[in-house]
Amino acid sequence: MAAEKPGIPKGTRDFSPTEMVKRDYIFNTIKNIYKIYGYQPIETPAMENLSTLLGKYGEEGDKLLFKILNQGDFLSKMSKKDISTIESQKLSSLLCDRGLRYDLTVPFARYVVQRRNDITFPFKRYQIQPVWRGDNPQKGRYREFYQCDADVIGSNSLLNEVELIQIIDRVFTNLNIKVVIKLNNRKILTGLADYIDEKDKITDITVAIDKLEKFGIEKVNEELSQKGLSKAAIEKMQPVLNSSESSSAKLKIISDLLKNSVPGKKGIEEINLIISYLEKVKLNNDVEFDITLARGLNYYTGIIIEVKAIDYEIGSICGGGRYDDLTGIFGLPDVSGVGISFGADRIYDVMEGLNLFPEDTTAVTQLLFANFGEKEELYCLKLIQAFREENISCEIYPESTKIKKQMAYADKKNIPYVALVGNNEIQQNIITVKNMITGEQKKYTKTELIKVLKAR
Amino acid sequence: MAAEKPGIPKGTRDFSPTEMVKRDYIFNTIKNIYKIYGYQPIETPAMENLSTLLGKYGEEGDKLLFKILNQGDFLSKMSKKDISTIESQKLSSLLCDRGLRYDLTVPFARYVVQRRNDITFPFKRYQIQPVWRGDNPQKGRYREFYQCDADVIGSNSLLNEVELIQIIDRVFTNLNIKVVIKLNNRKILTGLADYIDEKDKITDITVAIDKLEKFGIEKVNEELSQKGLSKAAIEKMQPVLNSSESSSAKLKIISDLLKNSVPGKKGIEEINLIISYLEKVKLNNDVEFDITLARGLNYYTGIIIEVKAIDYEIGSICGGGRYDDLTGIFGLPDVSGVGISFGADRIYDVMEGLNLFPEDTTAVTQLLFANFGEKEELYCLKLIQAFREENISCEIYPESTKIKKQMAYADKKNIPYVALVGNNEIQQNIITVKNMITGEQKKYTKTELIKVLKAR
Repeated sequence: MAAEKPGIPKGTRDFSPTEMVKRDYIFNTIKNIYKIYGYQPIETPAMENLSTLLGKYGEEGDKLLFKILNQGDFLSKMSKKDISTIESQKLSSLLCDRGLRYDLTVPFARYVVQRRNDITFPFKRYQIQPVWRGDNPQKGRYREFYQCDADVIGSNSLLNEVELIQIIDRVFTNLNIKVVIKLNNRKILTGLADYIDEKDKITDITVAIDKLEKFGIEKVNEELSQKGLSKAAIEKMQPVLNSSESSSAKLKIISDLLKNSVPGKKGIEEINLIISYLEKVKLNNDVEFDITLARGLNYYTGIIIEVKAIDYEIGSICGGGRYDDLTGIFGLPDVSGVGISFGADRIYDVMEGLNLFPEDTTAVTQLLFANFGEKEELYCLKLIQAFREENISCEIYPESTKIKKQMAYADKKNIPYVALVGNNEIQQNIITVKNMITGEQKKYTKTELIKVLKAR
Repeated sequence: MAAEKPGIPKGTRDFSPTEMVKRDYIFNTIKNIYKIYGYQPIETPAMENLSTLLGKYGEEGDKLLFKILNQGDFLSKMSKKDISTIESQKLSSLLCDRGLRYDLTVPFARYVVQRRNDITFPFKRYQIQPVWRGDNPQKGRYREFYQCDADVIGSNSLLNEVELIQIIDRVFTNLNIKVVIKLNNRKILTGLADYIDEKDKITDITVAIDKLEKFGIEKVNEELSQKGLSKAAIEKMQPVLNSSESSSAKLKIISDLLKNSVPGKKGIEEINLIISYLEKVKLNNDVEFDITLARGLNYYTGIIIEVKAIDYEIGSICGGGRYDDLTGIFGLPDVSGVGISFGADRIYDVMEGLNLFPEDTTAVTQLLFANFGEKEELYCLKLIQAFREENISCEIYPESTKIKKQMAYADKKNIPYVALVGNNEIQQNIITVKNMITGEQKKYTKTELIKVLKAR
């Protein structure tokens, strides 16, 4: 067979060991904190029935789904005429019954409804798995990427929001990323539309004010006017948009404005309660009220959360919110949930950009035993067991080639120590160790060396 | 929208928290041992180009590949006539450029060739990811399942085989599964076909003798005869097949028979060397020579490894071998490798069947704080932080509902301890704890309780 030029599909990635170790560091940090907060892991299949996925992500989302061609002689089930007359979109629905999951939320809702009788509610689950979207690939946007979600379903208590924000604070504290945690409430947005007498335009309003930070007040007002909001309505919103006050002052302004709106008051009350709880538990990062947050509007019904890194320019690195009827589409109405999702790829970029990965995330192997020939090899093979029993990651060079080549191997793999065990060492029952960073050579007993490596 | 009945595609599975914790236990055991032996993690994308996958798994394998429908208006690129005249298999190659990976070995070979200039050889990598096959689902066979592979590529040394067998021994020792590790060598099979003068029939021979354990010698001889082997040839093989001797005696018999076959002698020499090394490092499980092992014949060129559980009836739970030219198809010839793969699903079944999972793999949360109302909730929210800082997984019931309901929640989730913190406890600065297994109630200080939970 002629050699093929190897490559991978556009928008997908291989992860090499250096990247894997760093990614694992992020995933493990998130996973451990989810666990400590009592969240339990689940996994769902990569493939879902297309009927589960279609219609859940809007028209644009439907187009971005990866569809799996049915197995076997799929053409035999349709008429030749059908095939030659219909257009691609239609044909694909005849050719495919399954698709790759687009996010973890819809599969989770499907899971909950399917297992409603076995699940103990409130159900706190976390899920860390890849998702696939046929988006046009660009910097920081891939067709396969991991999501790290946690949701509580079946509880209305705001304590869940408080704990999820604590989780966010703890994760970024442990990762050493300084962030600001921004909060809003869908009910406040509803109240605002109420207050300016533009209830029907809530989507336009939130889409416009979402751009405030990026494009400034002039542009936002322009867009609002283009969308048909009256001059009076836009005028009424200015105190909210123009304010350069602190978070609590902003909250005061909006609560004065919305004092006659039922949803508005409720929304502010919720935010206030959450903030008062958070003050008691003391976070490391600041929490701010931000009326311009509108992420996933059609989906969220209460609190909306978004997290921004302070020292690095990038989109939001974590987000979430409360939804009141996610499982309704699958036949289980009136179950409220709240969830968050960490963006692992962006967090990776922030940590690389700010050089935040701990040094020991670069190497895996701690100690390489050089190979001087059969006799030494056998001796080392027994010796190395003691190190492995202490969970020290080590290896023995598999061939007795030139020592220079073996050293180059250690160097390229960032292995910090090389054990040189020749005839003398065997007779004296010691290990000569070369520190690959300082270049220094030193003799140790087995016990001493284990101690040195465990202390690292 | 009308409610859909939620379900998942045939042959796929959801994993609930109880299963996840057990699966993670298996994955983590394997992963940690791979690491300790100096293997480094990589990941490859779920989707590969179909050109990478097709033709690598035989005709049957090609049919079992899951193919991804091209995005967008894929029909515009082909003539209507084409579409209505060709058959399914052909059409699918026009409709699809990508497929889901079928195993981890071919993507690994592709990865190595693509990054040959960045990789330090010998390259020791492990990879734990799901694969997809459109097989007919049956007990223990799924369309999505995890593989746990480790390979060394770029080294001919048998030390690699020795270490991989040590890894196998260590993994099953840690999982508490008693196994027998069976070895064969493709070169011995070649030598055997040589010896009976039936070189061309090597595939038929290995396929037939692979059935010895299952169907007995009569059936094997019958099949050999049907495949056209001469009576003399079958007769010559009998000492090898009929032997009920020990592993070392069998090895002696075959080495006498094959003393004039170059590949045969080489194969036996390799097995002997590996066994002599393994005797020095002392394994917990037995290693046996077994001439009937033939797995993946077209693929392996040296040592073949297969692992069977002793106390549980199931197929092989780990396997592997040496291949001399896996990267050749992608344009990098003459790179020898050797690898193993653990079957996580079967290992799970063995452990469930023999009740081998440690008790603490059932629960995640160690301690639930009951919720008695706003004041107590706030108090507990601060208290719980001390436990979480000690990495103790705990949660607070999010609502102040009836205590009975909260207890039922702890019970169903297998949470072993419930903290009851009411007015009295707050005033006395203690925690009343109910042991959910014994039903016993006891008072602790925070420090005492942390100590108790950390000791578990």
